[in-house]
Amino acid sequence: MSTARIVELRKGVLKKNDELAAGLRTRFEDAGVLALNLVSSPGTGKTAFLERTLRQLRMVGERPAALVGDLETDNDARRLAVSGAPVRQINTHGRCHLEAEMIGHHLEGWRLDDYDYLFIENVGNLVCPSSYDLGEAIRIALLSVTEGEDKPLKYPSIFNSADIAIITKIDLAEVCEFDRELACNNLREIRPDIAIFETSAKTGAGFPEWLSFLVGEKERKQAAGVVSP
Amino acid sequence: MSTARIVELRKGVLKKNDELAAGLRTRFEDAGVLALNLVSSPGTGKTAFLERTLRQLRMVGERPAALVGDLETDNDARRLAVSGAPVRQINTHGRCHLEAEMIGHHLEGWRLDDYDYLFIENVGNLVCPSSYDLGEAIRIALLSVTEGEDKPLKYPSIFNSADIAIITKIDLAEVCEFDRELACNNLREIRPDIAIFETSAKTGAGFPEWLSFLVGEKERKQAAGVVSP
Repeated sequence: MSTARIVELRKGVLKKNDELAAGLRTRFEDAGVLALNLVSSPGTGKTAFLERTLRQLRMVGERPAALVGDLETDNDARRLAVSGAPVRQINTHGRCHLEAEMIGHHLEGWRLDDYDYLFIENVGNLVCPSSYDLGEAIRIALLSVTEGEDKPLKYPSIFNSADIAIITKIDLAEVCEFDRELACNNLREIRPDIAIFETSAKTGAGFPEWLSFLVGEKERKQAAGVVSP
Repeated sequence: MSTARIVELRKGVLKKNDELAAGLRTRFEDAGVLALNLVSSPGTGKTAFLERTLRQLRMVGERPAALVGDLETDNDARRLAVSGAPVRQINTHGRCHLEAEMIGHHLEGWRLDDYDYLFIENVGNLVCPSSYDLGEAIRIALLSVTEGEDKPLKYPSIFNSADIAIITKIDLAEVCEFDRELACNNLREIRPDIAIFETSAKTGAGFPEWLSFLVGEKERKQAAGVVSP
């Protein structure tokens, strides 16, 4: 089988995914739900970050929900459900990324009108999720201070497709000799207008700014929905 | 296009890869080269681990060489070349794993008889590289103390296909509240007979045991080569 043939087939899969994602995007917009797709390497701390985000959003009266993707186990859904937010686990059984079809399937039975935010935690992978639109309004790439400042340059497709970068585990920055300026420069080299938040799910550093941003985005989106035809 | 059709095509790609990998394995064995395939999440510290391994092997008169895979940049090859060992960069340009064909191509011009070890540093990805045999004798899965003890359970295919697990950044274990026993139990749940080394490329912890193991494996392999028909 030729490489050209595989490329052609892959295009078909991505085209189908794009169509399903466009349908999801319309549903999210109609319901006034801010959908966010979280991508990172395994171990960056997506779940810890999301755990604190869900808990604090609920604390200020917001209504978040979450879908969480993993090859196996429902560990993450169980961790996140402690926040009190509705959470569902998606097990991909070997698939290295989430696809729009899985999102649609796992939303069944949920009334989107009941939520302000839908967080989608992707499978830990800095490569493959970049090609799969999940209908999100905002794509978030997370990067921990323990991973090295060069990751944006080495995995450009994922950082180039992200709207926001979250630097995680900032409490470990000093012990890891993390070079903040270099990391931010590398992020901006790949994606010049990317917004960067520096956070620690352990200490809560950076969360006030992050939560203010989220609530602002939701309000902006819902206000735009009201005035649009 | 049906999923069944894609699965069928994927099988074809893997079959071709397996054939090429079998050819590589024979070449490595004939030349008495111990080939090792290093897989992990991005940011686990594969390059720092390999940097110290190459330097110390050369210090004791061994002859290592390395191939290093990344989507983009030749940062890693430049870092590793400082050791004095022959190193070549493989840029996959978006491909999320190394394949046997890339290995064969990048070995061109090297006389394998001149080396005792060939280290192959895979693209940082805990999912896709698990399916691609590169002709290695030993597959090594690396896991850093910063990533969380549950990674073997969440990415079982990569840990299940590994012969050795290297726990990296052990110098950060305390500050990350790393649960060593839990991590080792999870590794053994997925791969009961896996050998585990706990290391720090920064302090050198665990390297004497790791290097002794490597030299022992090479000697065992070369002795077996001599007595085999």
